[in-house]
Amino acid sequence: MSIAEASKRIPEKVFRDPVHDYIHVQQQVIMDLINTKEMQRLRRIKQMGTASYTFHGAEHSRFSHSLGVYEIARKICDKFVRNYSIEDGGVWDDSERLVVLCAALLHDIGHGPFSHTFESIFNTNHEEITQQIILSEDTEVNHVLRSVSPDFPNQVASVINKTYPNPQVVQLISSQIDADRMDYLLRDSYFSGTNYGNFDLSRILRVMHPYKDGIRFDYNGMHAVEDYITSRYQMYMQVYFHPVSRGMEMLLNHLLKRAQELFLTEDPYLDHETHAPFLEPFFMQNWTLDDYLRLDDGVLQTYFQHWIHFANDPILKDLAVRFIDRKPFKSVTYSEEENQEDLKVLIDLVGKLGYDIRYYVALNSRFDLPYDFYRPSAEKPRTQIELVEKSGNMVELSVASSLIAAFTGQQRGDERIFLPNELFYGKNRNNITLFEPILKQIHAMTKSGKLTPLAEGFDGDDQI
Amino acid sequence: MSIAEASKRIPEKVFRDPVHDYIHVQQQVIMDLINTKEMQRLRRIKQMGTASYTFHGAEHSRFSHSLGVYEIARKICDKFVRNYSIEDGGVWDDSERLVVLCAALLHDIGHGPFSHTFESIFNTNHEEITQQIILSEDTEVNHVLRSVSPDFPNQVASVINKTYPNPQVVQLISSQIDADRMDYLLRDSYFSGTNYGNFDLSRILRVMHPYKDGIRFDYNGMHAVEDYITSRYQMYMQVYFHPVSRGMEMLLNHLLKRAQELFLTEDPYLDHETHAPFLEPFFMQNWTLDDYLRLDDGVLQTYFQHWIHFANDPILKDLAVRFIDRKPFKSVTYSEEENQEDLKVLIDLVGKLGYDIRYYVALNSRFDLPYDFYRPSAEKPRTQIELVEKSGNMVELSVASSLIAAFTGQQRGDERIFLPNELFYGKNRNNITLFEPILKQIHAMTKSGKLTPLAEGFDGDDQI
Amino acid sequence: MSIAEASKRIPEKVFRDPVHDYIHVQQQVIMDLINTKEMQRLRRIKQMGTASYTFHGAEHSRFSHSLGVYEIARKICDKFVRNYSIEDGGVWDDSERLVVLCAALLHDIGHGPFSHTFESIFNTNHEEITQQIILSEDTEVNHVLRSVSPDFPNQVASVINKTYPNPQVVQLISSQIDADRMDYLLRDSYFSGTNYGNFDLSRILRVMHPYKDGIRFDYNGMHAVEDYITSRYQMYMQVYFHPVSRGMEMLLNHLLKRAQELFLTEDPYLDHETHAPFLEPFFMQNWTLDDYLRLDDGVLQTYFQHWIHFANDPILKDLAVRFIDRKPFKSVTYSEEENQEDLKVLIDLVGKLGYDIRYYVALNSRFDLPYDFYRPSAEKPRTQIELVEKSGNMVELSVASSLIAAFTGQQRGDERIFLPNELFYGKNRNNITLFEPILKQIHAMTKSGKLTPLAEGFDGDDQI
Amino acid sequence: MSIAEASKRIPEKVFRDPVHDYIHVQQQVIMDLINTKEMQRLRRIKQMGTASYTFHGAEHSRFSHSLGVYEIARKICDKFVRNYSIEDGGVWDDSERLVVLCAALLHDIGHGPFSHTFESIFNTNHEEITQQIILSEDTEVNHVLRSVSPDFPNQVASVINKTYPNPQVVQLISSQIDADRMDYLLRDSYFSGTNYGNFDLSRILRVMHPYKDGIRFDYNGMHAVEDYITSRYQMYMQVYFHPVSRGMEMLLNHLLKRAQELFLTEDPYLDHETHAPFLEPFFMQNWTLDDYLRLDDGVLQTYFQHWIHFANDPILKDLAVRFIDRKPFKSVTYSEEENQEDLKVLIDLVGKLGYDIRYYVALNSRFDLPYDFYRPSAEKPRTQIELVEKSGNMVELSVASSLIAAFTGQQRGDERIFLPNELFYGKNRNNITLFEPILKQIHAMTKSGKLTPLAEGFDGDDQI
Repeated sequence: MSIAEASKRIPEKVFRDPVHDYIHVQQQVIMDLINTKEMQRLRRIKQMGTASYTFHGAEHSRFSHSLGVYEIARKICDKFVRNYSIEDGGVWDDSERLVVLCAALLHDIGHGPFSHTFESIFNTNHEEITQQIILSEDTEVNHVLRSVSPDFPNQVASVINKTYPNPQVVQLISSQIDADRMDYLLRDSYFSGTNYGNFDLSRILRVMHPYKDGIRFDYNGMHAVEDYITSRYQMYMQVYFHPVSRGMEMLLNHLLKRAQELFLTEDPYLDHETHAPFLEPFFMQNWTLDDYLRLDDGVLQTYFQHWIHFANDPILKDLAVRFIDRKPFKSVTYSEEENQEDLKVLIDLVGKLGYDIRYYVALNSRFDLPYDFYRPSAEKPRTQIELVEKSGNMVELSVASSLIAAFTGQQRGDERIFLPNELFYGKNRNNITLFEPILKQIHAMTKSGKLTPLAEGFDGDDQI
Repeated sequence: MSIAEASKRIPEKVFRDPVHDYIHVQQQVIMDLINTKEMQRLRRIKQMGTASYTFHGAEHSRFSHSLGVYEIARKICDKFVRNYSIEDGGVWDDSERLVVLCAALLHDIGHGPFSHTFESIFNTNHEEITQQIILSEDTEVNHVLRSVSPDFPNQVASVINKTYPNPQVVQLISSQIDADRMDYLLRDSYFSGTNYGNFDLSRILRVMHPYKDGIRFDYNGMHAVEDYITSRYQMYMQVYFHPVSRGMEMLLNHLLKRAQELFLTEDPYLDHETHAPFLEPFFMQNWTLDDYLRLDDGVLQTYFQHWIHFANDPILKDLAVRFIDRKPFKSVTYSEEENQEDLKVLIDLVGKLGYDIRYYVALNSRFDLPYDFYRPSAEKPRTQIELVEKSGNMVELSVASSLIAAFTGQQRGDERIFLPNELFYGKNRNNITLFEPILKQIHAMTKSGKLTPLAEGFDGDDQI
Repeated sequence: MSIAEASKRIPEKVFRDPVHDYIHVQQQVIMDLINTKEMQRLRRIKQMGTASYTFHGAEHSRFSHSLGVYEIARKICDKFVRNYSIEDGGVWDDSERLVVLCAALLHDIGHGPFSHTFESIFNTNHEEITQQIILSEDTEVNHVLRSVSPDFPNQVASVINKTYPNPQVVQLISSQIDADRMDYLLRDSYFSGTNYGNFDLSRILRVMHPYKDGIRFDYNGMHAVEDYITSRYQMYMQVYFHPVSRGMEMLLNHLLKRAQELFLTEDPYLDHETHAPFLEPFFMQNWTLDDYLRLDDGVLQTYFQHWIHFANDPILKDLAVRFIDRKPFKSVTYSEEENQEDLKVLIDLVGKLGYDIRYYVALNSRFDLPYDFYRPSAEKPRTQIELVEKSGNMVELSVASSLIAAFTGQQRGDERIFLPNELFYGKNRNNITLFEPILKQIHAMTKSGKLTPLAEGFDGDDQI
Repeated sequence: MSIAEASKRIPEKVFRDPVHDYIHVQQQVIMDLINTKEMQRLRRIKQMGTASYTFHGAEHSRFSHSLGVYEIARKICDKFVRNYSIEDGGVWDDSERLVVLCAALLHDIGHGPFSHTFESIFNTNHEEITQQIILSEDTEVNHVLRSVSPDFPNQVASVINKTYPNPQVVQLISSQIDADRMDYLLRDSYFSGTNYGNFDLSRILRVMHPYKDGIRFDYNGMHAVEDYITSRYQMYMQVYFHPVSRGMEMLLNHLLKRAQELFLTEDPYLDHETHAPFLEPFFMQNWTLDDYLRLDDGVLQTYFQHWIHFANDPILKDLAVRFIDRKPFKSVTYSEEENQEDLKVLIDLVGKLGYDIRYYVALNSRFDLPYDFYRPSAEKPRTQIELVEKSGNMVELSVASSLIAAFTGQQRGDERIFLPNELFYGKNRNNITLFEPILKQIHAMTKSGKLTPLAEGFDGDDQI
């Protein structure tokens, strides 16, 4: 085959989709990719991880998101070929379509269960694994891509790692307004039942243009772009950074750490009934791509339930129960700069109550940069958003929009300390006995939602 | 405590919900029930089972549906107390509210993973288990309900088994227009991205009235009721009975049967690596409520993946791969009456290809009765829908509406025979060799989507 | 120019539309037609006439509907050319596109204000006027169409009167599932805030196919077609036939009749201040197309307000006040067959109260035929809906669907008698004096919402 | 009657509403107000004036908006009485409900047709007229309000002019987040088909609290408030300030000015056929409330059509044709500070072409202040938005939100010069003859969308 042959249209197949109405599949290669076991595996991994514990509707999978990214990319290609085809003197070469569609569809294929947490503990990296799945000769994905041409897997992988020569293609998949982000904002909004992520996709697609060196937007679409950026900001603030979801993440983090620790230090850490065969390669930091592809949300949760029912370690069992029965750690905000001392005091109090602070206290900061212009010196220099005036003049978004200027280069988010739920005021008023003074001190430090120093002399004693 | 005390309002808590905007919780008992481990377990069980393999958006859980049923019930109580309170001379006694809300919330709590299939193989019954969860002293649910009053669990359970004395309460939870059905039509529509299940909930709630002996509807709301019935019919025809979802169910059915057979006949059926501790009590038909509550979608799928990677039996492995990688059995319709002979011929052909027909062929019929009036002689006599004219006169729905009359008492659905996907025309054109004549006969019998007799003399041979 | 040249694409222009998101204009001819004064005039005529007095959101114009019909037709052409082009061996000739689009856009251009009522009084006919606007050399519409080719106006007109040779084109514009009906169901639903008219447009468009002799639907889309038919039925029953809107129509009817009568019989019927120059040609039954194109909702309502403030005739003033201030006639149902005598009794009672029954009583029946198969003998034989099975076999819809069979050939609707609002029970309890016995008899006959015979001996007197 | 009696609930009546689903009417006074002729008149006045010429869906009336404001106010009262009632120790006194609901419903009742333009020409003021309609003894509105208590009209009027003693009540009706703005953003979004005005009403209502001295918002609802402010900003930028709608406004302005001028200077300015009896009192600046209440969109447009057909003045006819047939003036932006000279040059060029520049040129600036904190010194000092932290601490919105800080106190909008459409480049390429050099100069100054100085020596002559 060749790219040209593989690009030929087959009779259209569709998937009903609540966000885009239909996902339209028009090439056999795309259908075959969707049917690979690596793609199907994404059905078993939730798109939003622990966020479904806060927003109960947000139970959609990475599979459904991947189809959505594909569909947005397809729509963009359709629009580009209609209005900017090189055949009509424009700058869009539609022979790029197939690589765009494949990259869009496969962009997240390296994700594992609860990626954020999993990666931080086991040093996996979903972006690298995406590349491996595309490039390894053992995967069905690679097999399908290779059937297009021997070099096609490399091309698709290079789009994802941003080394593909055509910047239009790269920016459709990864930039500050790309098919990935556009789908996840709309989809996460739809399923969570919040509307913060809604923006005007049709208008964005109308004002998006290919240029020789990338993607730009009509100046008169500036307000639609502003709307997209503020929607994204709202989703981060109100949904993705929600403290309850993070409370579940902290639990998960400590639970996996405890399991690894038991596995590595005790022999046998877990007896016959409780072993977790698909996790062990990761505990040992010696895993293959095949090992990775066996993991999903259900596998982890099944092992947690095995541990609840068969394991002996009380901390492992307790953390597993908290996770499975949804008892998230609860949090207050603090300031890295101002509360160093208070943190120590508070953590110390928790320890005094008998909690192992390695597993029952967690610090977590979560920040996002809603928009930035191109800074070559930044850690991750970004492609800025460029607007094109009627005259052909280009303006960077934050120059044109004082609304966006207010965001530019600024981190938004917070730092929180997470503790077991039962330590908070109001949770245990009835059965405070022995530890009452300590609990009262904890309550005093956390009551307002912000970490607050203890008043001098306050020891939680009765007189208060 | 007492029911009156337990009914007192706490400061309202809410859950964001994409279907109802917010779920409003106004009693501590409701909050406590939601936080039980038995309720939380419903997060790990998909509402629509294998339907998410057809409609990729339909990944929502029974947890989210249960909250939705609760919320509709709550809205109805609010409306009834406002307009029909016994305090104002009406027939609604708002001291029933708490039992209604609890029954609504707990109505589906006995569901397990892929209930439809699981129940048919292991003889479990989710309705009975719902009762057990409510009544067993060992559950958190029972503990919370008991805190209201010692008899309260019995009351809630009796609503669900329809023996509760007040028929208004029973019909809110189980009748042809109840809170359960209203939520699942709206919710399954929303998540699947089809709109067939949409009906005018606000208007239905407006025209719904309590009467002494149950729930009725204003005559001038007849068209809204028609709309609800036709929506329900559409959902059954277009979504719930979709042949691809049933193809996955048939796979699952055969996979579980194979595992049970191996477990019961071979020793050890599955070695150390492949055992499925939470399933074994069911293989042995000797399980407790605790055993049941350990099951969820992820547990089953994890065992299937263990079998893929560790089991020796080729049929078990093959069926597990087909399920995990989504390779549903494919089907054609047939007629029980007309195609008995053809069925035998076709099944025989499949056997000749070397497939074990016990595991690679399945017959499945799926029928629904969209509406029926009260027939005391029927197997499950139903409560009919009654409309009330301005004059106070009552009319049964199918008498008033000739549209509904068209449905009344009629089963809708079809009978299908399911076979491995690769046997169908178009799937294997390139590598047909040895079995070509047999395959051609299979193709000839299944090509039109309906089971079709072989033309006389047709043997699939080359001359055709 | 030629049709081929006129069909060439210009840079796309769009109109934001709440139903279809965007209306896409891709030919200069379409843009020019939209900008004609005959099209712009449709902005001043409400799509749903008096229905906005019942559903206050339904204030959209025939202009917005016309754009919507155009957009659906455009989408269908896009789909047909992609999948069934004669260039690829199919049966769709895309050189028909321009005539389809123009006919879709202009289909309703002959509508005047409150057409239903206006036509019945002044013997105008919006379908004939549509033809005239297209064919008359004096209109801007004709001028634009003529610029395509001298015969093009005739072609467009022949689509509308169903004599165009290609039945595909005719059926896209006028059949039981055409672009016109599809838009008005969706649009009237959206603006009225009822959801009854919602059906699955995307799916209908997917299963719609051109055949040599017209348009058909895939058999597996049957449920989507059923859904469309039941939606249409619901809109007629719940929205279009709403008795309050008809109460306003009856008022309007009598008001215009009174004005005409005064104009024809009195000299001067109306003095200087109250004349209604744009209406007079219609009073005299001697009007031109130019006269017709001067009318719109605002013109009629302005004259009504002039009459309120300047006219002398008390009936004219009173009816105008009732219309302008929204005091609809109120109604009860009756049966043509059973209530002939009762009607006379009731009308007689109204007359006794001093109302001129020519202007204060109205009978109105409104019926719809939700679906019919082709009956050459019927008054208006209809094109039936045909489904095509995979095998190529064709089935008429009501044969395939027992749901639709329930509707087929059956009229739905009712007959009502309309009277002044103040005559109904509950409206005038406080100041009944002289006419009390008569009013009581009227109340007794209308109280239940259905016309009811007076009980023997009942004379409305005090003893009751 | 008394306020307490008038507040009593009647059996609920509803109006179907596309934005709020249903409008719920629960007091007879509200029903009676809706039925007054002054309220019904709002059906004949479009909410968005000339914006429907840009967004064809935006044809909704001030009547539908008024019901929406009422409904939001009603929901707020319901929530306040449930959670903050003085009966439970809170600060909300539900005896204020009736005055809130009446003020919400009547808030815009003083609007006339195309208010923005009409007021600037005839020195009317819709806010003052709202007061008059409420207070004048001759209106039906006053009659209904007076039936509650003799002082009730004064109370309602004082809410609208912000002198009512309870600041909670005043702020519900007029503040930076009030029922009026919340409804118009949602409604104008819905009908225009843009989504910019969507914000999370349910969440705003959840975080809104009454305090002794007004209305505040929970700190944790800050992002919902940000979302509301940015939605409002987007609606101003993308919808309300759209240059095409303003092009229609400018036309309307000049048309009315021309009619007044003719009326005042010529005798008879308009002959018998063309007089406009309801407008004449305004031409003469000598009008009564009754005169005002006769005006609506249709009346103005009918007079414009009379002028087209009967008037002699060519400018009056031409401007009327442009308005009726939707030929808006077109515009470019300019800068007050930088383009004074260029403006003169351009206007001079237009004059040279023979246009009367008093009627064919218009300057228009349109600015909005998306948010401001309380500045006693400002022209219209505003009530700032206050957030309340858990601790009870109050923070002004722009202090808490750096996103809002970016807007605070800043005007957004532009200044434009409007000219006849035909003067713009691309509109008249084919028939430029005599005035070609002048037109070329105009084109050169307007081509980029911004007013641009002529290059030195450029005279539009051929060599260019």
